[in-house]
Amino acid sequence: MVQLTFGARMRLSPFHAQAMRAGLSHASVYNHMVLPVAYGDALAEYWRLINDCALWDVGVERQVEIVGPDAFALVQRLCSRDLTKLAVGKGKYVALCDHDGTLINDPVLLKLADDRFWLSIADSDILFWARAVAGERGYDVQVFEPDVSPLAVQGPKAEDVVASLFGEDIRALKSFWFTETHLDGIPLVLARSGWSKQGGFELYLTDGSHGDALWQNMMEAGRPFNIGPGAPNAIERIESGLLSYGSDTDDATNPFEVRLDRFVSLDTPADYIGKAALQRIAENGPARLQVGLVLDTAPAAATDRKWPISQDGETVGYASSIVHSPRLERSIGIGLVRTDLTEPGTRVVIDSPDGPIPASVADLPFL
Amino acid sequence: MVQLTFGARMRLSPFHAQAMRAGLSHASVYNHMVLPVAYGDALAEYWRLINDCALWDVGVERQVEIVGPDAFALVQRLCSRDLTKLAVGKGKYVALCDHDGTLINDPVLLKLADDRFWLSIADSDILFWARAVAGERGYDVQVFEPDVSPLAVQGPKAEDVVASLFGEDIRALKSFWFTETHLDGIPLVLARSGWSKQGGFELYLTDGSHGDALWQNMMEAGRPFNIGPGAPNAIERIESGLLSYGSDTDDATNPFEVRLDRFVSLDTPADYIGKAALQRIAENGPARLQVGLVLDTAPAAATDRKWPISQDGETVGYASSIVHSPRLERSIGIGLVRTDLTEPGTRVVIDSPDGPIPASVADLPFL
Repeated sequence: MVQLTFGARMRLSPFHAQAMRAGLSHASVYNHMVLPVAYGDALAEYWRLINDCALWDVGVERQVEIVGPDAFALVQRLCSRDLTKLAVGKGKYVALCDHDGTLINDPVLLKLADDRFWLSIADSDILFWARAVAGERGYDVQVFEPDVSPLAVQGPKAEDVVASLFGEDIRALKSFWFTETHLDGIPLVLARSGWSKQGGFELYLTDGSHGDALWQNMMEAGRPFNIGPGAPNAIERIESGLLSYGSDTDDATNPFEVRLDRFVSLDTPADYIGKAALQRIAENGPARLQVGLVLDTAPAAATDRKWPISQDGETVGYASSIVHSPRLERSIGIGLVRTDLTEPGTRVVIDSPDGPIPASVADLPFL
Repeated sequence: MVQLTFGARMRLSPFHAQAMRAGLSHASVYNHMVLPVAYGDALAEYWRLINDCALWDVGVERQVEIVGPDAFALVQRLCSRDLTKLAVGKGKYVALCDHDGTLINDPVLLKLADDRFWLSIADSDILFWARAVAGERGYDVQVFEPDVSPLAVQGPKAEDVVASLFGEDIRALKSFWFTETHLDGIPLVLARSGWSKQGGFELYLTDGSHGDALWQNMMEAGRPFNIGPGAPNAIERIESGLLSYGSDTDDATNPFEVRLDRFVSLDTPADYIGKAALQRIAENGPARLQVGLVLDTAPAAATDRKWPISQDGETVGYASSIVHSPRLERSIGIGLVRTDLTEPGTRVVIDSPDGPIPASVADLPFL
């Protein structure tokens, strides 16, 4: 057991004090910030997400704000998806690639105005990436990290919680759309989004000084709906086949390998970094593909570390996360394997530190 | 107490298994990897560094390798220091800034050949920054993270340990110079460097499969010199006034604010990102300056979190790390304050969560 040292280098979200008070037991680090992982009862937290609703401190999901006359030009240059039809008030899941077509982040892009965007990023320094491109191309934009920290409420009852606070009209908000609003003077952007398939909302707090108040308001409103603390859930995200950038990817992963084909625009005039490389990869086909894995036996310890996958003694990929699924009552995982091994039922071996574990390839998502 | 979750997103150094076996008790995350912080007895680890020698797993100190015909052009574009006279076999401490002159990393640059360099980086994704600049400018270079993981031996007896393994000639290696060598078939780059002022070496292991062997060799050779496990030491680095990028800096810190003036070349033809902005800042003078702080009383808990500094009720900066110095027998810290408050002895107040603590400004380094 290793204790996490909260150094000055590591920033805390506006919800951190409340997370500690709620009994935070496990944490990780994400975008140089403390990311809550568990509150002492991982299984209860899983079922809370599946059956009721959970409140997640996802303040680590930093925003890269891009504003100014060339804001759209820069955003389009960064994203491998044609953004010409994106409406104000809507978000889009996008892939960011480098010049070789390698995935470097998979944010949600929010269009706040024609000349103002947020990239709501996964765990890599896209602030610097965007600034480098803007600076070297001489774009007339400002690129900065605003005081914005998302708090997520996820689960089948999340909508009830949000409706009880923001009114019944919020039920009509479509997936990935957002609205600028406030709660007892707390300014926020309310979006129907979140990193689970159980439904829910993200409340982008736009003034960090209200972190305690927003958390407490949500917990209070959620009480009739069995709300409790939780965090982005490793089990549910694998069951649901959600991509975890950095976990499921490496320094050579392109979007086609990890099922992001439909977020890559190859045949539109939109020009962006990596387009030529992605066109070449699409033409030749990717070298690996992401699959589900169903293990014959459970590993000695459930793990979300990367383990090699082999077939007939030859390494053919790796499993990026293995968990026990309470709903499937099986050990399952996500892997990146050679493209000829993606047929469901294909037999492979996962080389765990405690010995080989036979497994079958499966379609994603599991549920 | 919060336990660190080792997710698949978080990479482990080749020395990690040995660090665990040595009793790793506290860790942080740095460049998306687990950074060992302590082994259960912080004070013993401090004195080991001051009096004898300590072995540090600093595999988190990733290398960004830049190689190819335009390698020098890219490296010079990235670094705010004139590099025309840098010799092969030598390292230089450099500042990397964005187009506004804001510090984004403070690596050691190693020149391995005229067309091959390593940036041995602090905690930000300089791999992406360098790739963005290379890609957008069309430089003919490869930019990648090689299989290189530093293991540091630091302390007054570190040279004895290294000489016992690599021969007496190594004592002649000057500061920041390095040599490509091997140890019982383990390939490495051996440099006189390290993030302490107690002297020592960094062994850049260039084949991660030898992590166990290198650690064990060093521990064995170090036994007569009282070697033991350790980590970059928060107390010693503050006593010695070493910069911690990300701890002592924020999103607006320029090199002049944190005593890096002599690593910024303003009057040479060398062109680099941020030069115009840095020239402007140098002309007007920086808004803040880094100082030492001596506290009248110890905080309730020694801390390395950022706390506001005030004078007459007005916020004038922040303390980025506060520790108890066993050698000075005082609570000391590093802060970034308004430039009119840098005179040693200037009285300020550090606003800790447990109440205000009067303190005096002091020169850096303390020792």
